[in-house]
Amino acid sequence: MTRPTLDESVKLDAEAVTILDRRRFPFERVWVRCTTVDEVAVAIEDMVTQSSGPYFAALFGMVLAARDAAGLPAADARAALDIAGGRLIASRATNNHLRKAVAAVLAEVDAAGPVVGEELVAAATRGAEAGDELYRAKSRALGEHSAKLLPDGARVLTHCWADAYLIETVAAAQRLGKDVSFFCTETRPYLQGARLTAETLAEMGVDTTLITDGMGASVLQGGLVDVLLTAADRVTLDGHVVNKVGTLGLAVAAHAFGVPFLAQVQAPDPAAPTAADVPIEHRDGTEVLHTLGVRTASDKVRGHYPAFDVTPPRFVTTIVTDRGPFVPAAVADYHR
Amino acid sequence: MTRPTLDESVKLDAEAVTILDRRRFPFERVWVRCTTVDEVAVAIEDMVTQSSGPYFAALFGMVLAARDAAGLPAADARAALDIAGGRLIASRATNNHLRKAVAAVLAEVDAAGPVVGEELVAAATRGAEAGDELYRAKSRALGEHSAKLLPDGARVLTHCWADAYLIETVAAAQRLGKDVSFFCTETRPYLQGARLTAETLAEMGVDTTLITDGMGASVLQGGLVDVLLTAADRVTLDGHVVNKVGTLGLAVAAHAFGVPFLAQVQAPDPAAPTAADVPIEHRDGTEVLHTLGVRTASDKVRGHYPAFDVTPPRFVTTIVTDRGPFVPAAVADYHR
Repeated sequence: MTRPTLDESVKLDAEAVTILDRRRFPFERVWVRCTTVDEVAVAIEDMVTQSSGPYFAALFGMVLAARDAAGLPAADARAALDIAGGRLIASRATNNHLRKAVAAVLAEVDAAGPVVGEELVAAATRGAEAGDELYRAKSRALGEHSAKLLPDGARVLTHCWADAYLIETVAAAQRLGKDVSFFCTETRPYLQGARLTAETLAEMGVDTTLITDGMGASVLQGGLVDVLLTAADRVTLDGHVVNKVGTLGLAVAAHAFGVPFLAQVQAPDPAAPTAADVPIEHRDGTEVLHTLGVRTASDKVRGHYPAFDVTPPRFVTTIVTDRGPFVPAAVADYHR
Repeated sequence: MTRPTLDESVKLDAEAVTILDRRRFPFERVWVRCTTVDEVAVAIEDMVTQSSGPYFAALFGMVLAARDAAGLPAADARAALDIAGGRLIASRATNNHLRKAVAAVLAEVDAAGPVVGEELVAAATRGAEAGDELYRAKSRALGEHSAKLLPDGARVLTHCWADAYLIETVAAAQRLGKDVSFFCTETRPYLQGARLTAETLAEMGVDTTLITDGMGASVLQGGLVDVLLTAADRVTLDGHVVNKVGTLGLAVAAHAFGVPFLAQVQAPDPAAPTAADVPIEHRDGTEVLHTLGVRTASDKVRGHYPAFDVTPPRFVTTIVTDRGPFVPAAVADYHR
C-alpha cells in the first residue's frame, strides 16, 4: 500500500526528536525540532502532534532524557528518567498512551540493571524501539480485526483522526480486496478531520467526503453510511468510550437510526473500571473562538472546550481491540 | 430593551433595498445595496442575509418590482409582479418565508384592484409594511409564549441563528424579570452561531458561551443546560421540525439525556402534511471546505452540504408558535 505522510510523523535523530506540525498539515509541512524532554512535552501540550503522535514523541523524548542523564551515576540517572517521564505524562491528561510510552522505555532500562553512559542510552533506545514496534503491531492487528467487520463497499463515517488505527484499517481492507469509502467530520476547533483524516484517506486512494460536525446525524438518518467508526482515547472496563468531543453525539445519533458504532482501542484501560476514573481534559475555551489562528467568533463571548466526551456503552455496538472485537459489556474480558 | 443590530438589518429607501451582510458581521458592518429584484434574489441566494432576513428582503424586493412596473398597464404590471415574486421565491428552496412575503405584497396589490403608477407602488408598499408588522407581531407573540416556558435562571442551548424569534424570546424573558444564559453552537460552515447569535445575545446583555457543533451532546449529557431551543424553518403538520443542519443531532442527544427541546415557528406549514413535502436544499459542498472564505480542508476531498435536517416528532418536546405551545402530535390543531 501507499504509506501516507502521517504514518511516520515523529522521528528521532542523533540530536533531537522532530515532529511534523499537525496544526499546519497539510497546508504546510513543517517539522518542530525538540532537543530536550521539556520541548517534547511542550510540543505535545501545544498540539504540535496528537492522537498516536504523543506516544511516539514520548518514547523518543525518553531517549533524549537518557542521553542527557548518561553522565550521571546510575541512581541519579534513573531518578532523572522518572522526572522526565512524569513531565511527559503530565502533558495531556486524558490519553493513556503517554504512560505506556514512558513505561516501555523504563522497563527496558530497568531490565538492563543499574546502567550508566552508553549502556543507559542503548537500553532506553531499545525500549523506545520496542515500544514503537509493539504499538505498530497492535494497531495492525486492530486494523485487521476492524477490516473483517466491514462489508465490501462499506460507507464509513468517522470523526476526528484515528491515526494508526485508521491507516491500518484501510490498509487491511485494501489487502482483503474490500472497497471502502468515508465520510469524515471536520472536527472543530482543530479541524483534524478536514486536514489529517481527509488528507490521509485521499493519500491512500479512498473516496472521501467531508462534512461539518453538525451534519453527522443527517448522514446517519439518511442512510448514507453503513457504520460509524472512531478511535477511542480510552475505553473503561465497563465499556465507556472516551474519545474526541463530538463522538458522543454521533454515537447517540447512530443508535437512534440503527447504524452500528465500532470504537477502536488497542486495549481497555485496566486502571479505569468506569468513566469516573477518567479525567476529562478541558482546553482553553478561546480555541473555540478561532479557526486556524483567525478569530471566527464575536469578541463579546467566551468559549467552552471539553476536549473529550464519554459515550456510555448503550450507544456502542462493538469495541475492536488488537485481540479482536468485544461487545461493550464484555470488554473487560480482554484482560482475562 | 436594547434592540440589537440584527433586529433591523434589511432596509428600504427611495432607490434600493439595503441588506446588512451577515456573512461578514460582526467583523465588518457592510451593507449590500440592491436596486432590482434580481439583485435582491442573488443576495438571498448568496446568503448575504438568512433566517428572517430573506423575508424582509422579499417584501421590500416586491416594492422595487412595483416601482419598476409602475409605468406598465395594470395587467402587465401584475404579471411583472408575479415574475418578480417567482424569482424571489426560487432563491431558497426550503424556507417558506419567501412565499409568505410575496403573498403579503400581492394580496394588498390585488385588494387595491387593477392599479398602475403611484397607486401600484403605494399598494405594494402598504403590503410590505403590513407584512413587516405582521411578522414582528407574530415573532413577539411567539417570544412571549417561549419565555413563559423558560424557568428563571434557565440555561439554554441554541443552534444557528433564530433571529427575530430569539430576540423576542430574550426580550420577553427580560420583561418577565427572568435571567437566562445561553450556550450557542458555532454552526459551520457559515458560523451563524459564532457571529450572529453570539454577538446579538451579548448585545442584549445575555451571558453567552460558544461551543463547536460537536460539543452539544457533551453539554446536554453534562447537565450544563436546561433546555434546547431552536427556530424551525418549517414544521410539518405531523410535527417534523425542519431546521438548519445540526438541529437533528442536538435533538436526538437532548432526548437521550432528558433535556426538553422547544422548536419555534410562527405556524406549522399547511402545505406540508409531512416531511416528504419539504424539499431539502443542498448547497455547494465546497462551502464545507472553507471557513470565512479561507480553505480549511485537504484539497484532495469533496464536501457535502445538506443545508437543513429533519427532526422527527419523537425527538421534539414542544413546538412554540405565535398562538402558544403545542405537542408535536397536535401541532396541526394550530390551524383549527
